[in-house]
Amino acid sequence: MIIVLKPNVTKQQFDHVLDRIKALGLKPMVSKGTERTIIGVIGPEDALRSQPLEVIPGVEKVMPVLKPYKLVSREFKPESTVISINGIKVGGKELVVMAGPCSVENRKMLFETAKAVKRAGAQILRGGAFKPRTSPYAFQGLREDGLKLLREAAKATGMSVVTELLDVRDMKAVERYADIIQIGARNMQNFELLKEVGLSRKPILLKRGLSATINEFLLAAEYILSQGNFNVILCERGIRTFETATRFTLDLSAIPVIKKLSHLPIVVDPSHGVGAWDLVGPMAKAAVAAGADGLLIEVHPNPEVALSDGPQSLLPKNFAILMKETRKVAQAVGRTL
Amino acid sequence: MIIVLKPNVTKQQFDHVLDRIKALGLKPMVSKGTERTIIGVIGPEDALRSQPLEVIPGVEKVMPVLKPYKLVSREFKPESTVISINGIKVGGKELVVMAGPCSVENRKMLFETAKAVKRAGAQILRGGAFKPRTSPYAFQGLREDGLKLLREAAKATGMSVVTELLDVRDMKAVERYADIIQIGARNMQNFELLKEVGLSRKPILLKRGLSATINEFLLAAEYILSQGNFNVILCERGIRTFETATRFTLDLSAIPVIKKLSHLPIVVDPSHGVGAWDLVGPMAKAAVAAGADGLLIEVHPNPEVALSDGPQSLLPKNFAILMKETRKVAQAVGRTL
Amino acid sequence: MIIVLKPNVTKQQFDHVLDRIKALGLKPMVSKGTERTIIGVIGPEDALRSQPLEVIPGVEKVMPVLKPYKLVSREFKPESTVISINGIKVGGKELVVMAGPCSVENRKMLFETAKAVKRAGAQILRGGAFKPRTSPYAFQGLREDGLKLLREAAKATGMSVVTELLDVRDMKAVERYADIIQIGARNMQNFELLKEVGLSRKPILLKRGLSATINEFLLAAEYILSQGNFNVILCERGIRTFETATRFTLDLSAIPVIKKLSHLPIVVDPSHGVGAWDLVGPMAKAAVAAGADGLLIEVHPNPEVALSDGPQSLLPKNFAILMKETRKVAQAVGRTL
Amino acid sequence: MIIVLKPNVTKQQFDHVLDRIKALGLKPMVSKGTERTIIGVIGPEDALRSQPLEVIPGVEKVMPVLKPYKLVSREFKPESTVISINGIKVGGKELVVMAGPCSVENRKMLFETAKAVKRAGAQILRGGAFKPRTSPYAFQGLREDGLKLLREAAKATGMSVVTELLDVRDMKAVERYADIIQIGARNMQNFELLKEVGLSRKPILLKRGLSATINEFLLAAEYILSQGNFNVILCERGIRTFETATRFTLDLSAIPVIKKLSHLPIVVDPSHGVGAWDLVGPMAKAAVAAGADGLLIEVHPNPEVALSDGPQSLLPKNFAILMKETRKVAQAVGRTL
Repeated sequence: MIIVLKPNVTKQQFDHVLDRIKALGLKPMVSKGTERTIIGVIGPEDALRSQPLEVIPGVEKVMPVLKPYKLVSREFKPESTVISINGIKVGGKELVVMAGPCSVENRKMLFETAKAVKRAGAQILRGGAFKPRTSPYAFQGLREDGLKLLREAAKATGMSVVTELLDVRDMKAVERYADIIQIGARNMQNFELLKEVGLSRKPILLKRGLSATINEFLLAAEYILSQGNFNVILCERGIRTFETATRFTLDLSAIPVIKKLSHLPIVVDPSHGVGAWDLVGPMAKAAVAAGADGLLIEVHPNPEVALSDGPQSLLPKNFAILMKETRKVAQAVGRTL
Repeated sequence: MIIVLKPNVTKQQFDHVLDRIKALGLKPMVSKGTERTIIGVIGPEDALRSQPLEVIPGVEKVMPVLKPYKLVSREFKPESTVISINGIKVGGKELVVMAGPCSVENRKMLFETAKAVKRAGAQILRGGAFKPRTSPYAFQGLREDGLKLLREAAKATGMSVVTELLDVRDMKAVERYADIIQIGARNMQNFELLKEVGLSRKPILLKRGLSATINEFLLAAEYILSQGNFNVILCERGIRTFETATRFTLDLSAIPVIKKLSHLPIVVDPSHGVGAWDLVGPMAKAAVAAGADGLLIEVHPNPEVALSDGPQSLLPKNFAILMKETRKVAQAVGRTL
Repeated sequence: MIIVLKPNVTKQQFDHVLDRIKALGLKPMVSKGTERTIIGVIGPEDALRSQPLEVIPGVEKVMPVLKPYKLVSREFKPESTVISINGIKVGGKELVVMAGPCSVENRKMLFETAKAVKRAGAQILRGGAFKPRTSPYAFQGLREDGLKLLREAAKATGMSVVTELLDVRDMKAVERYADIIQIGARNMQNFELLKEVGLSRKPILLKRGLSATINEFLLAAEYILSQGNFNVILCERGIRTFETATRFTLDLSAIPVIKKLSHLPIVVDPSHGVGAWDLVGPMAKAAVAAGADGLLIEVHPNPEVALSDGPQSLLPKNFAILMKETRKVAQAVGRTL
Repeated sequence: MIIVLKPNVTKQQFDHVLDRIKALGLKPMVSKGTERTIIGVIGPEDALRSQPLEVIPGVEKVMPVLKPYKLVSREFKPESTVISINGIKVGGKELVVMAGPCSVENRKMLFETAKAVKRAGAQILRGGAFKPRTSPYAFQGLREDGLKLLREAAKATGMSVVTELLDVRDMKAVERYADIIQIGARNMQNFELLKEVGLSRKPILLKRGLSATINEFLLAAEYILSQGNFNVILCERGIRTFETATRFTLDLSAIPVIKKLSHLPIVVDPSHGVGAWDLVGPMAKAAVAAGADGLLIEVHPNPEVALSDGPQSLLPKNFAILMKETRKVAQAVGRTL
């Protein structure tokens, strides 16, 4: 059972709820977030069912534990969540586009890319400063220098920044420079990292794991919400199958499934999903047609020399075409871009 | 090496080509189709490379065997194939919609469904008379009675018929009543069946196997073309993955990949792909946005009592909504519906 | 509900059972096999539950339809099935080994291989006369000539023959020359072929489909048993996964799972499972340790020039080593080889 | 290119190597481990090929970057690695067995389990103090209290301890109490954690990710070795497939594949692989027959009340049977247990 306390609960009310739970022989697990406090109750729940916990002052909601995830579910919050980032709204009628290079490589390429994607209509600049690479010998990112460059490029172009956090020890640095903190696919079940970003006030972009079921994806998001951070943007980026013609298999059916199950916004990363730049456009349009709330697109001014993910990066001019074509599809499904 | 002979090749020319091949110490494999004769050559190909086989009278084209599939490839035929069925064109600017019940259950339900889908804009009536069922105890179809009902319902509504062939022994019956012969996913590598329909003049709708790679899918189509039947419509209908929230995972990236590799038209069956009626609409729109040439949709007037695939069948009124919404997406990507 | 009639049921008793079923407003589906007649009953089963159908003369067993497969289940037949083929027992304490080339290529290589595998301890000669090839341009087998060669080689060495049937039209020829009829992985859900071999008296070797669940695998076997042929040997041969280091992923856990669910014997084909000859030995030993009732191994006197599956074929001398090593593992788990 | 320096390289020699690399216009990436220093060289490698770097004093080996992983490969070290842990050897003729509960729940159950598994022949006690749970509301482990209990139980029974590390911030605590540090499947590509344990002197048990290819698995191990820790034990624990009859699909073919590619020892965890206690025994025997260097087995005195993984935990008496039966298979393949 999950007990969600009101944002303005007093210390006295809080203690009273805990006392009631303990008096019933149950164990409360308290998660104090920056916005809300949530109490998980472990134990034989039948004892609680008849108790009018919901009428105790300070309690907002009491939810039985029928589904594995609670706070991310539409049962908990029927209306879709809209997250605001510097005036940009994620989850509303307008689609959000996050574009930029896979890795921040240097100032020149970053500023060039930022200007180009901004001009084409992207609102958020993406770029990796800490890079999770399959090989230890591959380029690992510019680290804090990369974060600073992102911030500067965003400032120069009037954009916001999304970038990946790999390590709890870099939390403060990423929080300082980023507007949205990304948790990558390979860390979707790095639960310590999820708990850490659950304590942040920044919105989190959570990518689906390479072989994560939708159920596990929503439970990973639940880790973040259970710490008090309700600003989670889900991201489908392709799952692993036997097919080798594409890098991964983009599971677009996850979009309508998740829209049924959860109130959280969901965006799609076709670049990683397909792994080849000339397939990105069709899949971006398909994602929007399926109901995605936005896109994550890799753009590079010179893909052949990119330090990572060159084959799937779009040239700025092709990104502009993608935006133009996707805009039409967005309008066809009642959205704007 | 594949030698494609001209449609009007004479017996004398044909024998001359064979003689030349044998004279080089190679073994010709002859496939005589209704439209064309193709000769596969097995042996050390270098011997042939310098031979000016292409100039022998009766020879249309000589193709080296670099890719595993030949006749289905864009190298063989750069322009996209458009297949005509009673005036309907598959692979052109206009999208084709094949709709109807999973199984033909009885006259009443079939006519009711046919009228409804025709009214909403479908051009082709789908329905199974021979049903491939996982369990031997499940409804196996009305067989030839079902074929006759399909023909009658199509005639009454001015539609064409697509229906599945399971057994080479039913070939004549299916060929008599159907306008398009469907090869189901579970038979995609039933090579004897593929060869059989390769000898037909009817267009073939070939569904991708549950775990077939795109390469294997195109090779299955190659079996049909190699027998002389070039009228093959490919159909993506979902592949098997670890995800259990949907019946299969609809691989929409197969559309742009296949458009690059092959000249054949490709349609999408979102009903089987997702297995839940309320996910069919978003995926139909996504398929069209990704570049599909048409859709295959299951519609049933009373899904709860359907003898097969009830959960994924749309009510006629919901199918009409799907058509209306998908039409907008079609227009957004420069197609009509 | 499944009603199994006694082998010696009279016409009168049979008609009486049908009458009783119809009198209850239900529809009987009769499967007359060579050994037994089975009646599937479709309709609201509650009506039948109170009826003492089991006491009607001629009825052997009445089974409620709780599990999807009936006749293959351990509930239906608790003791393990042992199938006799010319004195060889499959499913008993002694393991069975079926070995030989992928394809029958010519008399010389077949006889050479047969002698070698017999000498090393194999009891059954395997070899393909009809070959299901991914490409229409690949070697398709010697067809009936190949069947005759198999029979001759088996006679000369005192072995039995297992070979694949691809097409219902070749049923009589295969039945004439083979002791065991193989249904390949790509035909596991070719239900018309399954029904056809269900009418044969020959034992059937049924290979698991590339992406078939164990549940579907057992239902495919049920198709054969439901036609009256209870002599089915299951064969695990690898499933399709994302891993590319092996041709397929051999699912050895299917062995103990199937032993729990079904009374049918199960053998393993490590050659196709791994696709590389030097991995065959370890996986053969692992299969036996996991409880397999036998092995299917590809052997070729000259793998480099094999017309199919060369990379996974063992040289006769390496097959002899495999037999010697596997024998020790067999003894360690209480079996003989 | 990877340059491995000798263990006793001097500061002067080290600087000289760096100077030479820079003089060639290349960028050295230095990884200083506790045992060795390794230099990765990024840049156009042709420049280096002709340079006699290997003769510079202090350089042990120079490896071209043909394969993605270097230090874990058999090319780098042809003889199999044997890792010593308190006198136990992992990777030698004798198999190692790590057994114990999924989670450390309390002192009583842990000591009871430890005594039982020790008596049956296990050398290493396994148990989770930090638990990576799919749901934030599931039991997360006793944390440092659990580590202390593990140490005490190991001391009392004369065993060694393997336990999982989830968070770099717990590194010191885990290093203090554990003999082997486990990196779980969900963290196989948590590269920051891999680098951290690469700096430890403790042996690392690295579990294969749920959808990691063997190539990625070896690259994850490479992260650890590249930091200087060469004591890595690989662990196959099941991959994710479409099959739902088992929790995962245990990929035993990974054992002979990895034995070909790498010198590192590999053990198998059949408990997680299958997810059902009665399938653990057959798969443990199969793993040993396939060439595994050891086993990881979950044992619980009372599986029905286990706080995690109850269904796949063996009762102590069944674990004793497993050990007895597996010993016979070990002997059949020339190993001891």
